[in-house]
Amino acid sequence: MSKKEHIVIIGAGLCGSMLALRLAQRGYKISLYEGRPDLRTTDISAGRSINLALSDRGLRALDMVGIADKVLPLCIPMHGRLIHDTKGNTFASNYSGRKGEYINSVSRGDLNALLLTEAEKHENVNIHFNKKCINVDIEKPTAEFQCYLTKEEFTVDADVIFGADGAGSALRKSYYLEKKFLFSYSQNFLTHGYKELEIPADQVGNHQISKDHLHIWPRGQYMLIALPNLDGSFTVTLFLSYDEGEYNFNNLTTIEKVREFFESEFPDTLPLIPDLKNEFFNNPTGSLGTVKCSPWYYKGKTLLIGDAAHAIVPFYGQGMNASFEDVVVFDEILDQYEGDWDTVFKMYQKTRKEDTDAIADLAIDNYYEMRDHVANPIFKEKRKLEMELEKAFPEEYSSKYSMVTFNEHISYAKAMKIGRAQDKALLNLIADKEIDADLDMKQILQQVQKETDEILEEDKIARLK
Amino acid sequence: MSKKEHIVIIGAGLCGSMLALRLAQRGYKISLYEGRPDLRTTDISAGRSINLALSDRGLRALDMVGIADKVLPLCIPMHGRLIHDTKGNTFASNYSGRKGEYINSVSRGDLNALLLTEAEKHENVNIHFNKKCINVDIEKPTAEFQCYLTKEEFTVDADVIFGADGAGSALRKSYYLEKKFLFSYSQNFLTHGYKELEIPADQVGNHQISKDHLHIWPRGQYMLIALPNLDGSFTVTLFLSYDEGEYNFNNLTTIEKVREFFESEFPDTLPLIPDLKNEFFNNPTGSLGTVKCSPWYYKGKTLLIGDAAHAIVPFYGQGMNASFEDVVVFDEILDQYEGDWDTVFKMYQKTRKEDTDAIADLAIDNYYEMRDHVANPIFKEKRKLEMELEKAFPEEYSSKYSMVTFNEHISYAKAMKIGRAQDKALLNLIADKEIDADLDMKQILQQVQKETDEILEEDKIARLK
Repeated sequence: MSKKEHIVIIGAGLCGSMLALRLAQRGYKISLYEGRPDLRTTDISAGRSINLALSDRGLRALDMVGIADKVLPLCIPMHGRLIHDTKGNTFASNYSGRKGEYINSVSRGDLNALLLTEAEKHENVNIHFNKKCINVDIEKPTAEFQCYLTKEEFTVDADVIFGADGAGSALRKSYYLEKKFLFSYSQNFLTHGYKELEIPADQVGNHQISKDHLHIWPRGQYMLIALPNLDGSFTVTLFLSYDEGEYNFNNLTTIEKVREFFESEFPDTLPLIPDLKNEFFNNPTGSLGTVKCSPWYYKGKTLLIGDAAHAIVPFYGQGMNASFEDVVVFDEILDQYEGDWDTVFKMYQKTRKEDTDAIADLAIDNYYEMRDHVANPIFKEKRKLEMELEKAFPEEYSSKYSMVTFNEHISYAKAMKIGRAQDKALLNLIADKEIDADLDMKQILQQVQKETDEILEEDKIARLK
Repeated sequence: MSKKEHIVIIGAGLCGSMLALRLAQRGYKISLYEGRPDLRTTDISAGRSINLALSDRGLRALDMVGIADKVLPLCIPMHGRLIHDTKGNTFASNYSGRKGEYINSVSRGDLNALLLTEAEKHENVNIHFNKKCINVDIEKPTAEFQCYLTKEEFTVDADVIFGADGAGSALRKSYYLEKKFLFSYSQNFLTHGYKELEIPADQVGNHQISKDHLHIWPRGQYMLIALPNLDGSFTVTLFLSYDEGEYNFNNLTTIEKVREFFESEFPDTLPLIPDLKNEFFNNPTGSLGTVKCSPWYYKGKTLLIGDAAHAIVPFYGQGMNASFEDVVVFDEILDQYEGDWDTVFKMYQKTRKEDTDAIADLAIDNYYEMRDHVANPIFKEKRKLEMELEKAFPEEYSSKYSMVTFNEHISYAKAMKIGRAQDKALLNLIADKEIDADLDMKQILQQVQKETDEILEEDKIARLK
């Protein structure tokens, strides 16, 4: 088996640069093409703006390529949600009842820069910036690029081409338009968009609100969140409907109206966001979409990976983690079938697709959970009980959130299936007041497990399996 | 309000010609454009091939436009499924326990011809055949066509343009490519395709197998079905994977292999399909896909309707019925908001979308039910019990199938929600042997209703509503 094969990777974002690094470590000749300039030498936003939450699945990939220790200094641990009501009161809701389980706020730009630098240390890696992919001939395969600076167009031959070019993937577009095979494809937008704002650091460079939490202002039809940055600031994101409800992006056209909205719904944030007018009217309104498709590959010639194959909404903090886990799973498949790209691609999708479908659906679930349910009394009681169960039985109980976020050895699909049944069991036991105050924690655990098993069994019978 | 507005309808299939007829009855000036020749004067397949099953929702639309009595002579009633096992044994499974509830096998071509003729009786309707839509300018709005005969291209102005142009809609493609708004869109193909075959009439023109049934040969991974035609023949459809399993479309490349497949799986059909070789190798292999999208409209200028908005797989026999029901619902919305197309289109989608999403999902459910579950003992016991319940309590009990097929006053979305819960209740009661032989039918009904209500309530609590 030759390791001299030439691999073209389209897109040097988080997934593309992680993949380049891993395949370089395996000895392939890598050409990595990126449409934007080098973010290490140019002052650009990395293009995607919602802060990233790095957790165990992402860390596993960083471990695999041997750079986890270089990433930790970039991270700010967030141990739970801090929920703000309209009167400025807060309450904390931990992510886990176990010690050492937390998520990490990290800058997309810093992490991307580190991955590029690590990849470039390999002499078999060449990175080409300002080269935008405009088309892929999936049969040959070749990729066509245009240089942003010279406008010159050129074509690159490859043995294999990976599309790690994100939600707007040029490779995926080629699959769709060329109609060489039946291509199942979906793009689904939420009715809400988002807008970034900033809580700057205080005068001595400290965080103005707790940096140990992901802050949420849940209001049902809209939501504000804030994640801490290393420089003492917070990146704040407003999620709001384009055109429905009393306040929406279409009708918030004056600073007076925007202030009225914030005073009514997020009053405690107004003193913290001094540049509200400028940010609200100058920052773009981003859209929130889910992309699913199949197949991801064409013969043994091209493969979609990361957001190009499965873009998800940001509400589970799993977008980057899922893309990094793609590379881990792909690497395991390569261990088994290296040398036979047809089989590698087929087995990779077979192994991975149900999990990326699951995290896409879980991320939509969390959209409703974050903007609405977190303020619901039954939901709050459920989370409190789950924290107690995780604390009392760290080995025996994991919430859905824990399975998704902290248990990289449970697949997303399994976490979804069991987690949803467990949530349903808990909510129904609480609503029906079946969890007796006289029971000890062990009895409650058994009650929850029994109810969860029954729900899973009933669903199975209903599917006639 | 002027009724002189000029409406262009793209597509003179079942939905387009039904819509043209109804809007003509309301006084609009209608230009109906169709890419194919006039099927009344040209010997063509109507383009879509799976036989149609006309049921109550479709009949309601035919009633609305006043031609139901002209359609009934074209119909062959099918009272249930006749299921064939591999040994040639059959058993019947009725569609309903009530009298007078059946579905109708009808020829797409005959029905389409009738609708065209009825529409043309109105002097405010002009039908243009052989004019294929190649683009729509949704802002003006104008539609661009090419004449199949002269290859000439021309543009048509309209006050409003309807895209009734089916699963491959040109109007929908304009929405997708123009990117004037966030367009949520999905196309999902099954892993199985289909192939049409024929059981001809016997020598005196009679049906060779029961014409009162929809015949099914369910085999898990594949399935054969047959629907009767007026001329004594049956249209047979084979549903088979493209590339998986021992037998699939890719590996059935010789008549010997095809015969071996039929002898092993559908032996009783071999003597009935004399032209198997010719039909199997000359008829095209069709694909099976679901299309969903949103929004269906652009301002008050253009609207997608029928398959163009929501193509579904054929397994519930509801494709035509859903498209006809679109016209009924649209007509009701027009009653309320006529004169304000913006509001008409918005309210139409708001009213209708959840129902077309539901029938799309129900049709996928039925794919698994038909090819697999119908042969499952628990499923068979459930259907038997449902027939008894419908017979004993015609007013109080309806199966999911009955709600979808025979109850046009229950929306698809409601039929899905209640029907799925009821199915789950029945299957679990049967599997757990909780339906006691000593109970009378009234007690069983109450037991099923109680269990169904509990399932609905538990789901509601789990959604925190």
